[in-house]
Amino acid sequence: MPTSPTSASVARYELLAREIEQQIAAGVLRPGDRLPSVRQARSSRGVSASTVFQAYYLLESRGLVRAAPRSGYFVAARASGVLLAEPQTTEPQSGSQPVAVNDLVYACLGAARARDIVPFGSAFLSPTLFPLDRLRRALVSSTRRLEPWNMVEDLPPGNLRLKREIAKRYLRQGMAVPTDEIVLTHGAMEALNLCLNAVARPGDAVVVESPTFYVALQALQRLGLHAIEVPTHVREGIDLGRLAQVIELYRPKACWLMTTFQNPLGCLMPETKKRDLVELLARHDLPLIEDDVYAELYEGKVAPLPAKAYDRRGLVLHCSSFSKCLAPGYRVGWAAPGRLAREVERLKLMTSLTGSIPVQAALAEYLQEGGYDRHLRSLRLSLQAQRDSLFDAVNRNFPNGTKVVRPAGGYFVWVELPAGVDAMALHRAALTHRISLAPGPMFSARAEFQHHIRLTCGQHWDETLERAMRTLARLVDDAPRVDAAAPPSI
Amino acid sequence: MPTSPTSASVARYELLAREIEQQIAAGVLRPGDRLPSVRQARSSRGVSASTVFQAYYLLESRGLVRAAPRSGYFVAARASGVLLAEPQTTEPQSGSQPVAVNDLVYACLGAARARDIVPFGSAFLSPTLFPLDRLRRALVSSTRRLEPWNMVEDLPPGNLRLKREIAKRYLRQGMAVPTDEIVLTHGAMEALNLCLNAVARPGDAVVVESPTFYVALQALQRLGLHAIEVPTHVREGIDLGRLAQVIELYRPKACWLMTTFQNPLGCLMPETKKRDLVELLARHDLPLIEDDVYAELYEGKVAPLPAKAYDRRGLVLHCSSFSKCLAPGYRVGWAAPGRLAREVERLKLMTSLTGSIPVQAALAEYLQEGGYDRHLRSLRLSLQAQRDSLFDAVNRNFPNGTKVVRPAGGYFVWVELPAGVDAMALHRAALTHRISLAPGPMFSARAEFQHHIRLTCGQHWDETLERAMRTLARLVDDAPRVDAAAPPSI
Repeated sequence: MPTSPTSASVARYELLAREIEQQIAAGVLRPGDRLPSVRQARSSRGVSASTVFQAYYLLESRGLVRAAPRSGYFVAARASGVLLAEPQTTEPQSGSQPVAVNDLVYACLGAARARDIVPFGSAFLSPTLFPLDRLRRALVSSTRRLEPWNMVEDLPPGNLRLKREIAKRYLRQGMAVPTDEIVLTHGAMEALNLCLNAVARPGDAVVVESPTFYVALQALQRLGLHAIEVPTHVREGIDLGRLAQVIELYRPKACWLMTTFQNPLGCLMPETKKRDLVELLARHDLPLIEDDVYAELYEGKVAPLPAKAYDRRGLVLHCSSFSKCLAPGYRVGWAAPGRLAREVERLKLMTSLTGSIPVQAALAEYLQEGGYDRHLRSLRLSLQAQRDSLFDAVNRNFPNGTKVVRPAGGYFVWVELPAGVDAMALHRAALTHRISLAPGPMFSARAEFQHHIRLTCGQHWDETLERAMRTLARLVDDAPRVDAAAPPSI
Repeated sequence: MPTSPTSASVARYELLAREIEQQIAAGVLRPGDRLPSVRQARSSRGVSASTVFQAYYLLESRGLVRAAPRSGYFVAARASGVLLAEPQTTEPQSGSQPVAVNDLVYACLGAARARDIVPFGSAFLSPTLFPLDRLRRALVSSTRRLEPWNMVEDLPPGNLRLKREIAKRYLRQGMAVPTDEIVLTHGAMEALNLCLNAVARPGDAVVVESPTFYVALQALQRLGLHAIEVPTHVREGIDLGRLAQVIELYRPKACWLMTTFQNPLGCLMPETKKRDLVELLARHDLPLIEDDVYAELYEGKVAPLPAKAYDRRGLVLHCSSFSKCLAPGYRVGWAAPGRLAREVERLKLMTSLTGSIPVQAALAEYLQEGGYDRHLRSLRLSLQAQRDSLFDAVNRNFPNGTKVVRPAGGYFVWVELPAGVDAMALHRAALTHRISLAPGPMFSARAEFQHHIRLTCGQHWDETLERAMRTLARLVDDAPRVDAAAPPSI
């Protein structure tokens, strides 16, 4: 685990970053403006150069400023005109309740699959963003070298070479995750399900963000668990004060959170907050299932650390995969379940025995050959441009009263429609124009977020997407306003 | 679905088979003796030629007789000397109870993995029995032709070509299973778990055989389900009379049965009994999860039909895979869940999204190229020889008082040790001699079968196995006899 920075210095760079952010929001600093040089900021604020750098990196990671090689930091370009406002921190109904995912999720996922549909509702990136040729070569060459006995020996623990490569990537972030803590799974989804299984029994309650990824809700439902949806800040993640309250009130058995580029909000919990989260949970001996599948899709130069980096008690069950950043369709993920590693490994053994040997070997080969980081750098640049394009297009096209969150990373953009516009009706109307979107009620156990949608920027921005965005904006403009207090339309 | 034979004719060929079986058991017909020719039997019994053929096929499928090309049917060769007796129908404690799989299962599975251990306790066949080279070639060539869009389009439903190949194999058995009923999974284990999820909620009870496959017990435990263990005949499967009683008494939500070459008994439920089972369950609208992974490992020429073949109401959720017969380590299985197909597909989508695209494509390619049936024929011959060798070795070496079941197919041999020999103690003693075995308590929710072991004939019989068998028999001979009423040693 890395040495965590002292609270004092963290507070300082975060304070500086917040101040600059407010100046951008207030229009004092405008798109294209140059930030003070490090030397200027150092002397004008009386802080260290490292504090200034950390503040600028943080702003860069939030997409608010851009580094230009050898010339400094600039306020990021926005669409001309006034930006749409941001939604408030979410405020779900309080309480713990059983989960029943309705047909909506399946209908929406089904709608996003046809190739002729504009995939604003998709959960996937365009497959053309991945190094499929190089993966294929790795699969071919590793397959040629598979021994008959690999079929048996790689069984319960999974491919050792691949586990070592994963452990090495943790180490590069300063995290000492032993190879034998890692349990290879069929994608992060299986990892998350196994971890949930390891920490909760039917009837238990589990904390999730609000809104939350529908797969988490479905997993709770399958195991007969209750969901406690906690208010979540659209840029900084779950509200820790409210989390502390629900822990006292409902005695949940675990939290299932996406601390980095949350789906659907796209928010990034600041690292100090991640540390506070881990400390809060440690005081209650409460496990955190950390869904971290978007971690590699950051902006700027520095990868955000997961909450697991601050965990000293083995309470964080960190789950990730190669599906979002390297090899969709290979279905290779993993859990690093801390002190519950053996329990999760056993559950894996009894649930699906092991992963597919040939694809594990192929990924091990690909990672050992190198080139993964080069691919990631190029993927990050593509996604940054795609996020900017989608965010800008919403700002340019959607009517006043729309609110939108600029995502800190990943590939989702969360939009609050003007008061009273029904997301389900918009979803149905958009489909008649061959445009998909993910309506807000998919992301809540109580079908809340009836006036919200999640948009995906999964492919290179082009005229088709631009046209589809105009159509979508027109549909929002023309939509009948429903009484916000009326019962949901689903 | 095939036209099922009328009960009258079925009763006739089964009666004839049973009569001959009794003559073999009584020593009237001895190893090497020729059975009456079809013409002789027809006239002496007054039955049709087809009835005689069906009876002989059945005896062949049970390994009691062998066909010699152009010269007729002969009583199968046995070891010289008196055969050991068969165990009785099992008699588990009655009742429905929660499941707690203890560390035993994991310890035993772990022990069977080292390459230098004689793998009588393994759950796997020797990897050298599989066409790994041809599979590799299929993987390489199908990988070369994968399109980027396959990564997205093959997602939720799975590879369509592979599903078609599976549907074609059902059709060859006279079963019309539509391609879109088939849900591809990570091995049969995931298929079984998803089906269980689709039919039962925490607190429900599910019927299993006694003894039963430990993975079934672990799946029940994970979902908070209760197990009802029903007495099971060592050659003909679960007792239908007792099943009818527990259905009335405990109102279970489903049965999870292995009707063909049950693990660990190796028993094959006769087809008439499968039909009766399906009818019994239909009267109670009770789903059957049919674990059919060993179906291809039959003896003789005719593949046994699964219970699903008799299902007209979509109540049988048939689960299988390629792991036991073609590609261990690829982890490709499927469910054909009848009327619950959509529900299982949704659960799959939310549990692990989809299977691994490259290995699905590789298996589709392998199956389309042909050669699978040739491989299966050769595998069946190998396993028949391996079963005979293990069964004979137990008969030759184990002390009087041992009882053993000749398996009808698959690769497990179930042994009842002389009264009072503790299977757990034997397991520990055998491990010190680098020999693994699967002790009986692994196969029961109440750790029953304390005097039973499951042996695996997963590889070509050789001097090493022969020596290990003598060692094992000596350990049984030397073992202290424990009082059968004493508490279990685990």
